[in-house]
Amino acid sequence: MIVCSPMVPQDAFTDFADRYRPEIDAALAQIIDTLPSGCPAKLKEAMRYSLLANGKRIRPLLTLMAADACGAEPRSAMPAACAVEMVHAYSLIHDDLPAMDDDDLRRGQPTNHVMFGEGNAILAGDALLTLAFSVLTESLSSPRIAAECVKILASAAGPFGMVGGQFDDMHAQDGAHTIAHLESIDTRKTGALIEAALLMGAVIAEASEGQMDSLKQYAHAIGLAFQIRDDLLDLVSHASDTGKKVGKDKDQGKLTYPGFLGIDVSKRRLAELTEKATQSLSLFAAADHLKDIARYIAERRQ
Amino acid sequence: MIVCSPMVPQDAFTDFADRYRPEIDAALAQIIDTLPSGCPAKLKEAMRYSLLANGKRIRPLLTLMAADACGAEPRSAMPAACAVEMVHAYSLIHDDLPAMDDDDLRRGQPTNHVMFGEGNAILAGDALLTLAFSVLTESLSSPRIAAECVKILASAAGPFGMVGGQFDDMHAQDGAHTIAHLESIDTRKTGALIEAALLMGAVIAEASEGQMDSLKQYAHAIGLAFQIRDDLLDLVSHASDTGKKVGKDKDQGKLTYPGFLGIDVSKRRLAELTEKATQSLSLFAAADHLKDIARYIAERRQ
Repeated sequence: MIVCSPMVPQDAFTDFADRYRPEIDAALAQIIDTLPSGCPAKLKEAMRYSLLANGKRIRPLLTLMAADACGAEPRSAMPAACAVEMVHAYSLIHDDLPAMDDDDLRRGQPTNHVMFGEGNAILAGDALLTLAFSVLTESLSSPRIAAECVKILASAAGPFGMVGGQFDDMHAQDGAHTIAHLESIDTRKTGALIEAALLMGAVIAEASEGQMDSLKQYAHAIGLAFQIRDDLLDLVSHASDTGKKVGKDKDQGKLTYPGFLGIDVSKRRLAELTEKATQSLSLFAAADHLKDIARYIAERRQ
Repeated sequence: MIVCSPMVPQDAFTDFADRYRPEIDAALAQIIDTLPSGCPAKLKEAMRYSLLANGKRIRPLLTLMAADACGAEPRSAMPAACAVEMVHAYSLIHDDLPAMDDDDLRRGQPTNHVMFGEGNAILAGDALLTLAFSVLTESLSSPRIAAECVKILASAAGPFGMVGGQFDDMHAQDGAHTIAHLESIDTRKTGALIEAALLMGAVIAEASEGQMDSLKQYAHAIGLAFQIRDDLLDLVSHASDTGKKVGKDKDQGKLTYPGFLGIDVSKRRLAELTEKATQSLSLFAAADHLKDIARYIAERRQ
């Protein structure tokens, strides 16, 4: 007898992710595989190791979904989707280094410097960051749009964005801080790149100013929600779920939302932010996938 | 009695450098000083420390001189001049790290990680690299030219350019190599960024294809000359002249031109490359500064 499992209706995000995640992975692999011969084989291997690790691809999916919501063919935003994932991968490699967060497990695998050595890992990160800007300017056909995407991505990833957030996060245990300081860290460390992912998709779709503003509000809400969920996962889940060491934030005396607010209030804040994210999309005729990914971010197990 | 020193006629490069080096330094300082408030103060300090160290500013001067030789007002290329110096400064910070070349002295000062710690130095480098692309897209008024400059700079600095060269250089002592391999390393590690400096200046001046080709030949010659001179300096000069530890290449078993060719043949090769650089400028009506800088590179003491 054949037992059929009942049909489970998938949400719009899962549908979209099932369709485009393999395309994103293929596009990322192609970028690495077609690097000119001046790229050393071992460097290529180190870049590929982190870039093509078993990631959720949330940021590149946001880029494609934003382009879609603003009326463009999602694939037209693939260069920007790849660029944001490359910047994300670089940031993980550098954040995991012994001189920074000193992690040896990431996405269930040894971190880049554990596999390839510290010097190689630093250079693999540098290479991915730099290559992201090559991809934007080589693969987006409109120089105006390419320049705008570079501006958005560099601003989000640089000293007053992601790098600044990581810097403050690294030094957060140095003194007493407020929840406003924690939000400021996370807005830069996590939120800025999520916003850039969405805005690049919107720019490629030649979105209106109103659409851009809505996506900024949406980005702010899911960016903070993402970090709160991360903190909660670190506190309550297991290494087998998250693919990285858990309970580490507390061990290192890091600022976290549950640390400030307690678990229950943190969960309530997460729910509010998810609701706010959904509301900020009212302008869009078809943005169910963006609404669903906001829920996914709040509920994810890893 | 007043003794007058005889008037020494300055060369065109020195004239140009005397005029524009202070403007480059001021433009670099302004970029750091006007960073938005999201940039942590200590990160800003670490970026400023390396970016505004007592450098020769050869790369940004090349950018301004190329723009000038191609008929543009040199200052119009200032954003690209700043961007290339920021990429250069980032590369020095990362190259000096303990996991890479492990240097504690640079431009006569303690290296960035000695001053600020390893984690901060890695982030200061990341921030300068990223900010270079912000500067190009924020400050060049034509998006077409900005996108072209990003393409040139990212390609030169990335995995098949500077980072690839540094990667191979770091591993050069792992096996037996040829002078062709050494040239390939130096073309990427040093030459690529020098070429980018020149080409960005040319692009901003809307140079002809012939002018671009000439500048590529010129860049190739001075890029190699620069590295040969560096190797010779490491061998024969003193720390007080170069501002960094000398004799280190030999101690670390690094590939060098004098190591392959001997000092005399290396010097002859340097002279040939300088001559070749000068000849490649025949197309330009007014490029005396570029000719003079080729001589300066071959003769510099630090």
